[in-house]
Amino acid sequence: MSTSALIERFQQRQRGALARLLTLIDNGHPAADECLDELHRHTGQARVIGITGPPGAGKSTLTNALIKGLRTQQLTVAVLAVDPSSAISGGATLGDRIRMLDTFDDDGVYIRSMATRGQYGGLTLATGSATRALDAFGFDEIILETVGVGQDEVDIASVADTTLLLQVPGMGDSVQTIKAGILEIADIIVVNKADAPGAQELQRDLRAMLRFRGHLDWMPPVMPTVSTTGQGIDELLEKVNAHAEYLEVSGQGEHRRYRRVRQEIHRLARRYLERDLEVTLETTYGEQMIQNVREHKITPRGAALNIIQMMQSESGTKDSR
Amino acid sequence: MSTSALIERFQQRQRGALARLLTLIDNGHPAADECLDELHRHTGQARVIGITGPPGAGKSTLTNALIKGLRTQQLTVAVLAVDPSSAISGGATLGDRIRMLDTFDDDGVYIRSMATRGQYGGLTLATGSATRALDAFGFDEIILETVGVGQDEVDIASVADTTLLLQVPGMGDSVQTIKAGILEIADIIVVNKADAPGAQELQRDLRAMLRFRGHLDWMPPVMPTVSTTGQGIDELLEKVNAHAEYLEVSGQGEHRRYRRVRQEIHRLARRYLERDLEVTLETTYGEQMIQNVREHKITPRGAALNIIQMMQSESGTKDSR
Repeated sequence: MSTSALIERFQQRQRGALARLLTLIDNGHPAADECLDELHRHTGQARVIGITGPPGAGKSTLTNALIKGLRTQQLTVAVLAVDPSSAISGGATLGDRIRMLDTFDDDGVYIRSMATRGQYGGLTLATGSATRALDAFGFDEIILETVGVGQDEVDIASVADTTLLLQVPGMGDSVQTIKAGILEIADIIVVNKADAPGAQELQRDLRAMLRFRGHLDWMPPVMPTVSTTGQGIDELLEKVNAHAEYLEVSGQGEHRRYRRVRQEIHRLARRYLERDLEVTLETTYGEQMIQNVREHKITPRGAALNIIQMMQSESGTKDSR
Repeated sequence: MSTSALIERFQQRQRGALARLLTLIDNGHPAADECLDELHRHTGQARVIGITGPPGAGKSTLTNALIKGLRTQQLTVAVLAVDPSSAISGGATLGDRIRMLDTFDDDGVYIRSMATRGQYGGLTLATGSATRALDAFGFDEIILETVGVGQDEVDIASVADTTLLLQVPGMGDSVQTIKAGILEIADIIVVNKADAPGAQELQRDLRAMLRFRGHLDWMPPVMPTVSTTGQGIDELLEKVNAHAEYLEVSGQGEHRRYRRVRQEIHRLARRYLERDLEVTLETTYGEQMIQNVREHKITPRGAALNIIQMMQSESGTKDSR
């Protein structure tokens, strides 16, 4: 399918076109950027809810419960399950696990797994791009779900409007198991399986831990839920709305949107510059510079500055963009 | 110490200045690049021997034996022991282990550990820079030693003229334990502890494995050594010389030196461009572009191209380099 055909079908809201674009993004294909650029004017409407937490905390059941709650409000929901470990384990992805819970032959729901790995920051780039694709497709709500592995939670938080940190009782030494830096990214803390032994103590400990951080403009609430029964889900969604309101009133929402657009421009500019740099190093002039450095006629820094100047006068290389 | 004072003392061949520069490199300090640029004209003389292999293969004792062999030939030797794991384990670094083997109060020998971690490609960058610093200081031979962790061996090979892959008998299933891609970077394979049981079989298996790769211009020889007694070390050094000769005759040496200089220019140019990009994004014009994208007056790609054009006309930002 050509890029223009893909964009056309996407704008006709064909799910196959959405799936194709998400695959292009997951594979880091250049055509993905072209499409996203065309679709950019349709973005900026969706709300993005991030969910993170340790394996076994019940992220899939919580996502399932949130989907139901949001659907009751007539909101359309896309779920992006980011699961870098699935490529290693070969096991069921988060997306599979959500799908297994209910049969969504509901047009208002879309579920997709991504497993992008390898590239430096590849996951964040792909997640940001995929979120924009889902936004442009017209979903009201996007749920970004990730297993808590390393840096990924923090990356998810940079893409999400509201980040939920999921905790469950009975996972070792209570709140001691929360990794450093993870509490800082939580806008709302969810104590799932709130009917299980130790849930009260966990909530109390989490609240104490939060108080220890001192005064914040937004104090992350600790919300008990039982995802399997739906208990606490409405209250949780109310808190998500309250956080959205806080973001607007405080200007934080404005700040986050600005930062995200800045990151995207930065990323594209860096890629174009990198391409121009490679092209210029391959010219006769570039080769001459390398040779001059080897013969000690010029320092590496001097050569680098000359190469940059040549990039800037050689506007011809930019026509291919 | 100012940069110019450091360079002056370095050129007087003061070891404290060398140690200071290597610390700046290990820390990724910007002054390191400034120094290396000044010292560039003194580089290009040293030969770089890379040594890699699994933990327990005897890299430190082999390095020790090679130092002795090279010193007999009146050559000065610097050892750079690259050990990213030491920062994690907190254990003795490779450098420490080499130092413990003999007391080198020999002016012709210098041993240094590096543990740079974290940054993307930080280890390769630091290793390349440190090698150039040791080269500029005037050492005849530089031994780059690394424990076999992940990508690092391959990175070491891109810096070294000749890469030795160390193997020992009795480490599990003979040559089956050689990681994919590692054999490809080996210029010479060393079977250390050649007096131990299984050494003959290991050599035979390795030679068979090499033949399986088919004809190469340089067939990596398999050299038996007993580092603790010095057995086979002279023969190994002869093979290193033979490989050096091959590099020159075949043009491979020329090719490698060219590629290394190109990489350094590329790295510096990328850093300057990245800095200019950040500066331009912070200008009123940059902010306007971000705002225009947010208001859908322009696409992210359009904004990125405008930002690049602004970088190129704004020569003022480059004066600070």
